[in-house]
Amino acid sequence: MPVLTPIGVVRSPYCSRKDAPRQGRLSETISEIVVFDAFREGIRDLADHRFLFVLTWFHEADRGVLAATPPAEQRSHGVFSTRSPDRPNPIGLCLVKLLELEGLVLRVQWLDAIDGTPVLDIKPCHRPLDCPEGAGQQVSISSARTPLE
Amino acid sequence: MPVLTPIGVVRSPYCSRKDAPRQGRLSETISEIVVFDAFREGIRDLADHRFLFVLTWFHEADRGVLAATPPAEQRSHGVFSTRSPDRPNPIGLCLVKLLELEGLVLRVQWLDAIDGTPVLDIKPCHRPLDCPEGAGQQVSISSARTPLE
Repeated sequence: MPVLTPIGVVRSPYCSRKDAPRQGRLSETISEIVVFDAFREGIRDLADHRFLFVLTWFHEADRGVLAATPPAEQRSHGVFSTRSPDRPNPIGLCLVKLLELEGLVLRVQWLDAIDGTPVLDIKPCHRPLDCPEGAGQQVSISSARTPLE
Repeated sequence: MPVLTPIGVVRSPYCSRKDAPRQGRLSETISEIVVFDAFREGIRDLADHRFLFVLTWFHEADRGVLAATPPAEQRSHGVFSTRSPDRPNPIGLCLVKLLELEGLVLRVQWLDAIDGTPVLDIKPCHRPLDCPEGAGQQVSISSARTPLE
C-alpha cells in the first residue's frame, strides 16, 4: 500500500474542523502553506501560476465513512458523491489563489484546511484541463499560465 | 505517515505510460473505473454528477523527482509548477465525464491513467468551488449537480 510523504504543512487561523468554513472559496481568510526545506526545488517557478490545486491529508478524518449528508441536504449520499472530508482516503482537494510566494511560504486564499494539516501535493490549475467548460480545447501549458499580478 | 487504500482500479486501453495521452481531455477514449465491492455504498448517487475528479496513484512514478520539463517547453520547472506524474506524492488528478454507471463500473471519458492504475478517491466537480471563474459565487451543492443526461 502506498505511503504518503507530507511536503509541507498548512498554517491557518482555523484551529478545528468546526472553525473551518464549509467553502473556503467564500472567505477572505489568508492561509499559509509552509513547504518543507527538502522540497524547496519543487516550488521553483510556482509564482508563474495564480490558481493552484492543493492536495492535503485530512488527518482528523474518519476513514470508515461510506455515506454522508451534505450540510444543505436532508438525505445521505455515497461519500464519493460528496465532498465530505470523512472518506476512505481523506485527500483534500482545494483550489486556491496564490497571493505571494516568499521563500518556502505560500500565502493563499480559499484554503479550507485547518492549522497543522499535512500538504501532499501542489499542482497548477489549467482551466482547459480542470474545468468542465474547457472541454475539447487544446491546452498550451505556457499560455495557460496566469502569473501573479 | 498516512497509508492509502485503493478503492478501485482503472481499466484502460492505455497499457504503458508512453501510450497514455499527454492530455486525456483531448481524447475520445473511454476508460472504466472498477470500484471494489467493499466501497459499493460510496458510489450511491454518483450518477447525479456528470463531471468528477478522479484521484489516482501513479504507481509507476519516480517519487524522487523535484523538477520537470513539460512536453511543450525547453526548460525545467519545480515539479509543483507542473503536472508531471513523477513527483513526491504521485497522486493523479483528472477531471472526467461520467458516461455511465453500471453496478461497480464507471464508464468515463478524459481519464489519462494507464490500465491497472489504483484509484484513491472520486469527488464530484462543483464549478464554483473548483474553477477559477466561479470565484466568490455561493454554491448550492444540490444545484451544482449536472446529472447524466
